Amino acid sequence: MSFGINRRIVLTIAATVAILFGPTLPILEQAQAQTDPLPSWNEGATKQAITDFVARVTRQGGPDFVSPDERIATFDNDGTLWVEHPMYVQLAFALDRVRAMAPLHPEWKDTQPFKAVLEGDMKTLAASGEHGMGELVMATHAGMTTEEFQKIVTDWLATARHPRFKRPYTELSYQPMIELLAYLRANGFKTFIVSGGGVEFMRPWTERVYGVPPEQVVGSSIKTRFQMRDGRPELFRLPEMNFVDDGAGKPVGINEFIGRRPILAFGNSDGDLEMVQWTTMSGGARLGLLVHHTDAEREYAYDRNTSFGRLDKALDGAALNKWIVVDMKSDWKRVFAFE
Amino acid sequence: MSFGINRRIVLTIAATVAILFGPTLPILEQAQAQTDPLPSWNEGATKQAITDFVARVTRQGGPDFVSPDERIATFDNDGTLWVEHPMYVQLAFALDRVRAMAPLHPEWKDTQPFKAVLEGDMKTLAASGEHGMGELVMATHAGMTTEEFQKIVTDWLATARHPRFKRPYTELSYQPMIELLAYLRANGFKTFIVSGGGVEFMRPWTERVYGVPPEQVVGSSIKTRFQMRDGRPELFRLPEMNFVDDGAGKPVGINEFIGRRPILAFGNSDGDLEMVQWTTMSGGARLGLLVHHTDAEREYAYDRNTSFGRLDKALDGAALNKWIVVDMKSDWKRVFAFE
Repeated sequence: MSFGINRRIVLTIAATVAILFGPTLPILEQAQAQTDPLPSWNEGATKQAITDFVARVTRQGGPDFVSPDERIATFDNDGTLWVEHPMYVQLAFALDRVRAMAPLHPEWKDTQPFKAVLEGDMKTLAASGEHGMGELVMATHAGMTTEEFQKIVTDWLATARHPRFKRPYTELSYQPMIELLAYLRANGFKTFIVSGGGVEFMRPWTERVYGVPPEQVVGSSIKTRFQMRDGRPELFRLPEMNFVDDGAGKPVGINEFIGRRPILAFGNSDGDLEMVQWTTMSGGARLGLLVHHTDAEREYAYDRNTSFGRLDKALDGAALNKWIVVDMKSDWKRVFAFE
Repeated sequence: MSFGINRRIVLTIAATVAILFGPTLPILEQAQAQTDPLPSWNEGATKQAITDFVARVTRQGGPDFVSPDERIATFDNDGTLWVEHPMYVQLAFALDRVRAMAPLHPEWKDTQPFKAVLEGDMKTLAASGEHGMGELVMATHAGMTTEEFQKIVTDWLATARHPRFKRPYTELSYQPMIELLAYLRANGFKTFIVSGGGVEFMRPWTERVYGVPPEQVVGSSIKTRFQMRDGRPELFRLPEMNFVDDGAGKPVGINEFIGRRPILAFGNSDGDLEMVQWTTMSGGARLGLLVHHTDAEREYAYDRNTSFGRLDKALDGAALNKWIVVDMKSDWKRVFAFE
């Protein structure tokens, strides 16, 4: 059996195997990838750079070949895979939770930053800074079991709507990125999320929305405690930070949770700078990418001067290190699946 | 195309695909599993319980069917997958490192616990307790980059020999367990190591020895710091504990690193008690297993009264919760591959 075998036969075999053993067989994804795997990306230098890179690292015997087990790709989440404006989705969740929990906390009416949330006073809330945000997160993310928190997140996502798009947040994931994740997996990559967001806020839905299973999601976390209650084991969420997966924390998290260095990293802000440095500045074929939010009409436009999701140092780093800066307005044919 | 297709044709297709696309295709593992997948396990109740469980959770449409993405299996390492006597392999590594590094640390001649190590005074070393062990670990595991540490571990394993068996430690992995890991993977399980040992001590070799890739190894860790040196990013290992993946830390680590609850957990000591509780006491088809070291002739015999790797509370838990206690002497036909 040689590699010169008629391609039609290979595809027939692939299809037969797929029918017999289920549609998720990687071989079928490979076969499907023969048509344009990135239909929501406009033709041009950016799309070309991505497909060229994938071709190089998957060409067996080529100078840049990377074995499948080393094809690790890491993606930021907020602003890279889904919308992060006008506020991080997880912050919207925290604010909604404060409102929902307020009847059980009459003291919040007179205590900042809860008072500001309940009065819709975003200016005072912002002025409460990191300390205030920390209090909000702990009050809304801790004090329950991991299973209870998972249900709270799932229930909230089912009903919450984005203030501008009036749609569930999970529909505000970027269609070109969903295609890119699938394209990479079809080419033997293992795709990971590496986000500053809470890992237990993401895991309940990343498999459904991005095809990324829980065990491939790295994120920030609070501490948990194992305990037996009524003869059943549970993990109780404590109001204490465990790990902040942002900035210089991202390569630390990648090393701790994945234990391999990625060959492709995709971010959109200065919080992703170190992840992209760690990925690309190590010799060998590597690809660093940044989403540049340039499309106020279809999504948002911001970079150096936004109060969060700021893309400033990382944009300078891109120029210096030849990372690909994805121009949302010109590179993406479609931003959302519902367009 | 129906499922009544001649089995020979299916196997031919599987073989063709395997030849074209590499030998690790899960389908081939499935085909091979038709012969006895656990040849190093003696026939009997233990082996039967394992294969019955796997049959139950993989039988599509059956009452205990578990979808492949939820087939998470977690394994302790020391004493469960490889030898842990007469001392944890990682402790042997630390002692060898102290000896190798001693010329650079003349002060160690007069400083405990290093003095005890250099003089081979195991009694004084043991008396230094947890504090002394902590000092040894930090002195030998921190102060270098992650890449440097990986090389140190790899080089050490290539030359170090077990004092009794006179073989590399990686040959002292248990053949029945290696077969079990492969058998589970062939049945759609994702196999993880969840060990009290250092995660960066295990990752350099677990894929080669157990078929478990780095991103599926959970373990204890020290902190690392991201830094740029001479224009290259590196992770520097700091002498500060980050996470202790033992006892009640195991379910915490499983939740943090894997984000799903296992359906099978395999340990050998009280340090695995909470992991097996977390896995099995949650409804649904679940399997908890413990290696009972009962074979002083081929390996070691110890349980309730050993100074480490103690199996006491977990043995009581096994009786209470119907976990499988694997009797090494009677259940394992072969302990090591070289026998």
